[in-house]
Amino acid sequence: MSGNKPIVISAPEPRSLDLIFTPDKLAQLRAKYEIVETSAADVAQLDGSVLAGARYILGQPPLSSETLARLTSLRAVLNVESNLQDNMPYDEVFGRGIHVLTTGAAFALPVAEIGLGFALDLLRGITPADTGFADGTEQWGGDGNAQARLLTGADVGIIGFGDLGRALTRVLAGFRCNIQVHDPWIAPSILRDHQVIPATLDTVLAQSDVVFVVAAVTTDNRGFLGADAFAQMREGAAFILLSRADVVDFDALLDAVAEGHIIAATDVFPEEPLPTGHRARTLPGLLRSAHRAGALDVAFKQMGDMVLEDMDLMDRGLPPMCCKRAERETAARMRSRPVDKN
Amino acid sequence: MSGNKPIVISAPEPRSLDLIFTPDKLAQLRAKYEIVETSAADVAQLDGSVLAGARYILGQPPLSSETLARLTSLRAVLNVESNLQDNMPYDEVFGRGIHVLTTGAAFALPVAEIGLGFALDLLRGITPADTGFADGTEQWGGDGNAQARLLTGADVGIIGFGDLGRALTRVLAGFRCNIQVHDPWIAPSILRDHQVIPATLDTVLAQSDVVFVVAAVTTDNRGFLGADAFAQMREGAAFILLSRADVVDFDALLDAVAEGHIIAATDVFPEEPLPTGHRARTLPGLLRSAHRAGALDVAFKQMGDMVLEDMDLMDRGLPPMCCKRAERETAARMRSRPVDKN
Amino acid sequence: MSGNKPIVISAPEPRSLDLIFTPDKLAQLRAKYEIVETSAADVAQLDGSVLAGARYILGQPPLSSETLARLTSLRAVLNVESNLQDNMPYDEVFGRGIHVLTTGAAFALPVAEIGLGFALDLLRGITPADTGFADGTEQWGGDGNAQARLLTGADVGIIGFGDLGRALTRVLAGFRCNIQVHDPWIAPSILRDHQVIPATLDTVLAQSDVVFVVAAVTTDNRGFLGADAFAQMREGAAFILLSRADVVDFDALLDAVAEGHIIAATDVFPEEPLPTGHRARTLPGLLRSAHRAGALDVAFKQMGDMVLEDMDLMDRGLPPMCCKRAERETAARMRSRPVDKN
Amino acid sequence: MSGNKPIVISAPEPRSLDLIFTPDKLAQLRAKYEIVETSAADVAQLDGSVLAGARYILGQPPLSSETLARLTSLRAVLNVESNLQDNMPYDEVFGRGIHVLTTGAAFALPVAEIGLGFALDLLRGITPADTGFADGTEQWGGDGNAQARLLTGADVGIIGFGDLGRALTRVLAGFRCNIQVHDPWIAPSILRDHQVIPATLDTVLAQSDVVFVVAAVTTDNRGFLGADAFAQMREGAAFILLSRADVVDFDALLDAVAEGHIIAATDVFPEEPLPTGHRARTLPGLLRSAHRAGALDVAFKQMGDMVLEDMDLMDRGLPPMCCKRAERETAARMRSRPVDKN
Repeated sequence: MSGNKPIVISAPEPRSLDLIFTPDKLAQLRAKYEIVETSAADVAQLDGSVLAGARYILGQPPLSSETLARLTSLRAVLNVESNLQDNMPYDEVFGRGIHVLTTGAAFALPVAEIGLGFALDLLRGITPADTGFADGTEQWGGDGNAQARLLTGADVGIIGFGDLGRALTRVLAGFRCNIQVHDPWIAPSILRDHQVIPATLDTVLAQSDVVFVVAAVTTDNRGFLGADAFAQMREGAAFILLSRADVVDFDALLDAVAEGHIIAATDVFPEEPLPTGHRARTLPGLLRSAHRAGALDVAFKQMGDMVLEDMDLMDRGLPPMCCKRAERETAARMRSRPVDKN
Repeated sequence: MSGNKPIVISAPEPRSLDLIFTPDKLAQLRAKYEIVETSAADVAQLDGSVLAGARYILGQPPLSSETLARLTSLRAVLNVESNLQDNMPYDEVFGRGIHVLTTGAAFALPVAEIGLGFALDLLRGITPADTGFADGTEQWGGDGNAQARLLTGADVGIIGFGDLGRALTRVLAGFRCNIQVHDPWIAPSILRDHQVIPATLDTVLAQSDVVFVVAAVTTDNRGFLGADAFAQMREGAAFILLSRADVVDFDALLDAVAEGHIIAATDVFPEEPLPTGHRARTLPGLLRSAHRAGALDVAFKQMGDMVLEDMDLMDRGLPPMCCKRAERETAARMRSRPVDKN
Repeated sequence: MSGNKPIVISAPEPRSLDLIFTPDKLAQLRAKYEIVETSAADVAQLDGSVLAGARYILGQPPLSSETLARLTSLRAVLNVESNLQDNMPYDEVFGRGIHVLTTGAAFALPVAEIGLGFALDLLRGITPADTGFADGTEQWGGDGNAQARLLTGADVGIIGFGDLGRALTRVLAGFRCNIQVHDPWIAPSILRDHQVIPATLDTVLAQSDVVFVVAAVTTDNRGFLGADAFAQMREGAAFILLSRADVVDFDALLDAVAEGHIIAATDVFPEEPLPTGHRARTLPGLLRSAHRAGALDVAFKQMGDMVLEDMDLMDRGLPPMCCKRAERETAARMRSRPVDKN
Repeated sequence: MSGNKPIVISAPEPRSLDLIFTPDKLAQLRAKYEIVETSAADVAQLDGSVLAGARYILGQPPLSSETLARLTSLRAVLNVESNLQDNMPYDEVFGRGIHVLTTGAAFALPVAEIGLGFALDLLRGITPADTGFADGTEQWGGDGNAQARLLTGADVGIIGFGDLGRALTRVLAGFRCNIQVHDPWIAPSILRDHQVIPATLDTVLAQSDVVFVVAAVTTDNRGFLGADAFAQMREGAAFILLSRADVVDFDALLDAVAEGHIIAATDVFPEEPLPTGHRARTLPGLLRSAHRAGALDVAFKQMGDMVLEDMDLMDRGLPPMCCKRAERETAARMRSRPVDKN
């Protein structure tokens, strides 16, 4: 009888159950739990018995202290959008031992793979070389390789070492790069254990042939990569932006590319979609991607898998481990804007 | 006194000493050996004492039995163009214990890196996504990812497992692919030892998401990848041609792409440069590269390093090991055309 | 002025500050913090201002709710013995956001290395072969290898997949083993991500050539490996016990070895020291180690490093990440006995 | 009809067909070839038609120029004992393009695995710790670990970098060692490509925590590791001898161990079996193995697999690649004594 199933309040917008679960997994979810589907805005209005019985919330609805007090059985908020908003009293949530979980790690591998693709494209000129065929300007053999460089053995910098930074080191495994990482939130020994070298921001910028930026936006780091940062980079180095446009001074980035000092690729822009006529649309030396790096169907479906596995652990009285836990110390400091489309 | 130095006959066309040696290494070469610079066509006309004293030939000049008989001190022909021509009596050469060495392995890593770049480009649509920005047709987020796929965990096929195939497995190391390899010249246990699965050509074609072709042209395999081969491939699979156009029926390849059955990338073409107006220049679903995959300066300079290291071994009465040795059994069966430009 | 330094209450018994810190690191600790050295039993009697000002406790003293209430600045209990005792009100501790941290991960690599050493010793008979030389009974060449087997490519089972299980997979990296893991507290996708195969206990026992036991003792698993378990194992398989004797029925283990059904190595015993005359002391087919697997000086010193790094993170308002956090769900379920000697 | 099968002359002593082929593989061999079984001493007396028709010789019989001249169809001598004797006119053999192949690579992995076992045993005192249990002298916990060290991150030296040296780097893959290699027959770039550091003998000796000796005996290196070599080693370093006793001054080795300057393990001895009462039998600090490192059944069977695979390649007009080829330059310089027992 469904009355005995644990209740899951589902408000995963902008995701949907069909987006994050395969049909099989969705059937498993429905077989095991009673799913109460609503919208984030309406969670507070749910029937008291639903709130009192809810073991999990799927989504990131705003929760007041009052609503939270009524969620007496709640074990976890599973935020499948994955960018934390400051829309619930985190101290109370954590004080009660309720987990706040995010599934952004599912994006790590897709983003890392395209990030490596960007790096190889920039180092070898793959996209401009292809484009040249259309108008007969392609250059053959070594003539086309004046700027071409190997990634193997290169000095690589990574700024930010969460799931995405780690996924980058995985796809780079075969390249024997010298990898320096800057992330002030990560202990140096953890970095060394991942076989990367802890470094200051200045060192990473000044001593890398390729810089990957995968840092989330926080209260501390908005726009921390500006004109000075780009000026420190090696002549001709590649700058690859994979997290959020807000961590860079985007105009300064475009200037550094326009001057020919660096080359760059970006998956994110200050405005999305980018306005018609924006100079970034045609700037040579810039490789563009329309916020597509993570949004693969396989990543969304992995989110559903992570959710099911962690709910299974929590059902058995064990701590969750597939999703990432929001931390009491930093939950309120995250500022990467949630997406409004998948 | 230079008279005591071993003689090296240098006729490395289309390479040059400056192309394959850094200034430092060239100085080392000149300090250690007496370099007699000539052209391939003129080797036979060299002074008898030069021929008699020559320990090494740098290049691949035509050698008659008569000339060979006069090269009484010869230990090795170091072919830095690297495609073997059938222009010397190999049986006599090998019978005398003269090594015929090629430096093509220096191209393996550059080709493998761009090959991986092509694969990521095809799987994620990197080039067309960038191109879309110019005319405002780019698609944002998941909308642009309908065909996008991960390489991690994919079924990968490699046709040909010389230096290039091995370099591919190296750059693929972080992707945990299921790699099947077809190469009838390689023993299955050697393939398994490289952690790839020996497979028939049909299996590689039919069971791969990405197929890399890195087989050299031989007397046995001209045009062995034709319409039937492409028809066997999975719908939407990626075909990446990195060795020589002669191993495929190029028109059949373009047809398979034009029909939308597969997507493809190629670094080589039946005619190079490709004629103006050739349909390959603008065919959607095809990523083009103008025979640029290997011709990096760093690869040419590595050739010089390999040559110096192997001459040092041979000077000490040891077998060479950096360059690849032409084999008595197969030297005359190789048919990849030498390049006429670097 | 020292009055401005954060207070650390130090009661790390049976460890000592000199055991876990190098002189340099101890100087760093003293420079940065005011260290109040006491014993676990005396913590509750400390001056109120010390309790109120203490940011960290080094050790695992018993804490009553009353004492805890006075520790108003406490951010973390850093348990450097590392086996959790049920001697503090964990719910209140966690409710206040105080971290309970353990440093047992420092033992993982030493234990994994000796565990691999045990495996190679058992598979190749290293110890008995050496012993044979003393009395002239050594067997030469293939004669001594009737039971000898390779580890490369073997079926390996790991029971328990905490830090120690992960360290085992690291030292096994070069052996291309087929690794099956049983750990009901770990999500299957986490295991797969570590490139091991999730499996039931029965499967691990029945399908392995070598079984490593690295599971901690919990309220659920005392003596869970008994006569039935050993009977399921392959004839001649190797059983290697690295965690705690309490997870096995030790007599049943010795019986299985005595019968010649399996061979085994153990670092732990039901009584330590083992009584004189205990049959385990001389049983053939058993390799013995006197609880020495983890207790290396380098491991103790790493504990100090972990403590310093995590205190630095917490000082900066960031979550700790080097030590392992006790979990609200499982802290009270751990039953591995603390050691009373280092 | 068997008359059409290629002839194989079989004289593999001290191996036998049953030792090196599984029943299945032996059946394959007999189905494909006509096997003429004889002894090494009797090959020259074989019927002229057998000699004229023999495509392969399995073994290493003495061959005079006269006999060789009668072996008109010979493609390869497959030496399954694997230590080259100077018992055939190598120049004529190589001049005719006949391959001389050895299967010693089959021993590489068994030797590397036990070599790693020796290293872990020495670093952690596994064997003496076990022995202590018999007489109640075992030391518990950290008390027994005064000399214990980790292999992870250690400085490792390897002397000789043939198949065995490479296999060592494979089993060491998980240990993140700093590996320096001395092998004057190997080009430095080849070493670097295997991610080890080329070094002089002095550097390897003086800067390693563990030294593995896997160099074969040649005309150049008999006894090259003597008292001076051991004196250069770090205090307490481990010396592990896996190739042949003839490369060391064995008495000097025992002296260095007896003085407590180094610890050591050896699989080989100047006399085998070792005389009764030899001091090496009971010397503390020495771990002994009775030439058992390679002689595993699985290694012998792999030899048969290698032979079959290479004969298949040569049958198809391709060069062999599984066995190692004797080199024209060095064949006559090898001096590792053949074994007379398996």
